[in-house]
Amino acid sequence: MNQLGLAVREDAVGNIFGSWEGSEAGLGAVGTGSHVDAIPFSGKYDGVLGVLGALEAISLLKRSGFQPKRSLEVIMFTSEEPTRFGISCLGSRLMAGIEELAQSLRKVVDNQNVSFLDAAESAGYKMDPKDLQSVFLKKDSYSAFIELHIEQGPILEKEGIPIGIVTAIAAPASTTVEFEGNGGHAGAVLMPARNDAGLAAAELALAVEKHVLESGSIDTVGTVGILQLHPGAINSIPSKSHLEIDVRDIDEKRRNDVIEKIRRSATEISKNRGVVLSEFKIVNQDPPALSDQSVVEAMEFAAKQLNLEYKKMISRAYHDSLFMARVSPMGMIFIPCYKGYSHKPEEYASPEDMTNGVKVLALTMAKLSLE
Amino acid sequence: MNQLGLAVREDAVGNIFGSWEGSEAGLGAVGTGSHVDAIPFSGKYDGVLGVLGALEAISLLKRSGFQPKRSLEVIMFTSEEPTRFGISCLGSRLMAGIEELAQSLRKVVDNQNVSFLDAAESAGYKMDPKDLQSVFLKKDSYSAFIELHIEQGPILEKEGIPIGIVTAIAAPASTTVEFEGNGGHAGAVLMPARNDAGLAAAELALAVEKHVLESGSIDTVGTVGILQLHPGAINSIPSKSHLEIDVRDIDEKRRNDVIEKIRRSATEISKNRGVVLSEFKIVNQDPPALSDQSVVEAMEFAAKQLNLEYKKMISRAYHDSLFMARVSPMGMIFIPCYKGYSHKPEEYASPEDMTNGVKVLALTMAKLSLE
Repeated sequence: MNQLGLAVREDAVGNIFGSWEGSEAGLGAVGTGSHVDAIPFSGKYDGVLGVLGALEAISLLKRSGFQPKRSLEVIMFTSEEPTRFGISCLGSRLMAGIEELAQSLRKVVDNQNVSFLDAAESAGYKMDPKDLQSVFLKKDSYSAFIELHIEQGPILEKEGIPIGIVTAIAAPASTTVEFEGNGGHAGAVLMPARNDAGLAAAELALAVEKHVLESGSIDTVGTVGILQLHPGAINSIPSKSHLEIDVRDIDEKRRNDVIEKIRRSATEISKNRGVVLSEFKIVNQDPPALSDQSVVEAMEFAAKQLNLEYKKMISRAYHDSLFMARVSPMGMIFIPCYKGYSHKPEEYASPEDMTNGVKVLALTMAKLSLE
Repeated sequence: MNQLGLAVREDAVGNIFGSWEGSEAGLGAVGTGSHVDAIPFSGKYDGVLGVLGALEAISLLKRSGFQPKRSLEVIMFTSEEPTRFGISCLGSRLMAGIEELAQSLRKVVDNQNVSFLDAAESAGYKMDPKDLQSVFLKKDSYSAFIELHIEQGPILEKEGIPIGIVTAIAAPASTTVEFEGNGGHAGAVLMPARNDAGLAAAELALAVEKHVLESGSIDTVGTVGILQLHPGAINSIPSKSHLEIDVRDIDEKRRNDVIEKIRRSATEISKNRGVVLSEFKIVNQDPPALSDQSVVEAMEFAAKQLNLEYKKMISRAYHDSLFMARVSPMGMIFIPCYKGYSHKPEEYASPEDMTNGVKVLALTMAKLSLE
């Protein structure tokens, strides 16, 4: 029990659950939650709002004397950001029952060569590798899942609308690429004798941008957020390069076409530059998720009751909700954030906007708990 | 005294000297030497051959009963590679009396924010900042300086020639460049709203290659060995990028023209992409060095005496000798290395080739000692 009177438990990989038992605890619960991990040099609202805001919503409902029928649960998902193990939404993906992930987690290591299993064990999780499937959610565990989040885009702020009701989450894909060349001394190896893995990476980064723009849709985005050279000395020709590429779209096929073009460019670049394309690995290539109509209606009901203007919108960033949607009816509540900034220190949401978001979340959960 | 009977001393920044006093110790000494530091993931011959080979040459002369007239000195230079403080040939540059370097060393820090002065002090060097000028070589300290080194290029091996006699060292220049943009979330910020500092860096890396190839000379080389993105997460648009660019040529003007073109490209890229060019800094831009005719003649004499074929050649890599040439007549002896590989683990020179190099060095020093 924590101070809100929630029964707290955690699963084998570090997802933490706080539960308020309803009068009909045998029914699927209404879940909410998000994550508190962050990428390097980021802000403090992405994810955190959806955890602290969920606790505040529970507190609000308790203070109001509300009695849930379906149990209410707050989930703090582990490792939503891909920073350490290169896998985003690790906790919610696993909860969604992705068998291949449970398999691959047995082998994955971070960039210090620490395995996921060792890291989890040293963090205190019971890490029997055979136990990873125990994290998979049972069917009908949740009758609904709602996540409160900052928009991470500029629309709500620009239009002066306090609440966004998410109807779909864009389809993300991550790809890692490695080129290898002969490297050598930056002074002694003449230009025609070079096969520079760094220049291959530079070309591919620009090709990613080109292919994304060619899609012709404003909804296609692509980013090379990681580009590393080896050995990384000013007087050494790069003998290896490593890129991590993020491509998203609300249209899955259009996104996959971009990835296919990037693959062809990587192959061409490797041929033209005489470097080896030693890896082209699609780490994840998730379908988009649609919010559930019943959850959307409950969010709309809550916003109207609270007299808050709302806008139906898609989420271009993805969230644990993308994976919760596979095992539960799902919906998301957005609030405005300063200039749409996210994943950088300037990220900010006002107390007033957060309060509005928490109220909509509380009322949505209350309504869904009684259905 | 070490076991070869050399009097050992070191200067304020860690250059180490081993001296065999000649019968006319008042005359300028004949110096030889190189360095033993290395870039990350490099080989074990670059520099090391010129230190261990120098000791072996001294040993050979002692065993042969030779008596020097001018003193013979072996120098192990500190920090030839720019790995830690971004300054190549730190020891020999300072010995060459570069006042600006003595000034800037008082402020320089490594990437862990450890200052050069603190690092030197913790390594045991007496680091009174006012003392840095004490490292400057007095005029006529050396009547000649000779460095034995692997070629770091493929020519001698390909042509089957055991000895290279260096007539000039190419002119190196190092430049650091930084771009800054707004960064942001890789899903939420649409393509037209981006100013991606990583893509600016990718474009500049390719522009370096283009401008080098435009020079039209096989002797112009340019390398982007370091390209770093910040914050370096797959789902974050790079808000900063940092490049380190190495450009070399045997023709100083041609090299400087390339750097000027790179500067113009950096400015154009920053304008086109809406990123800030927050740094374009030429860290060093050294003139080429010519070997001294008297030293070249002594090396030729030695090779002929030993019945070893030799080739006169230029050094495309640069060395401590580039700076020793400013304060002493200079020459370099090259030996073949496997496939011309250097600055990577495959770097290799055969015992036979090393023996030839040491013999030529010993005989050259002996001859110059008696002049």
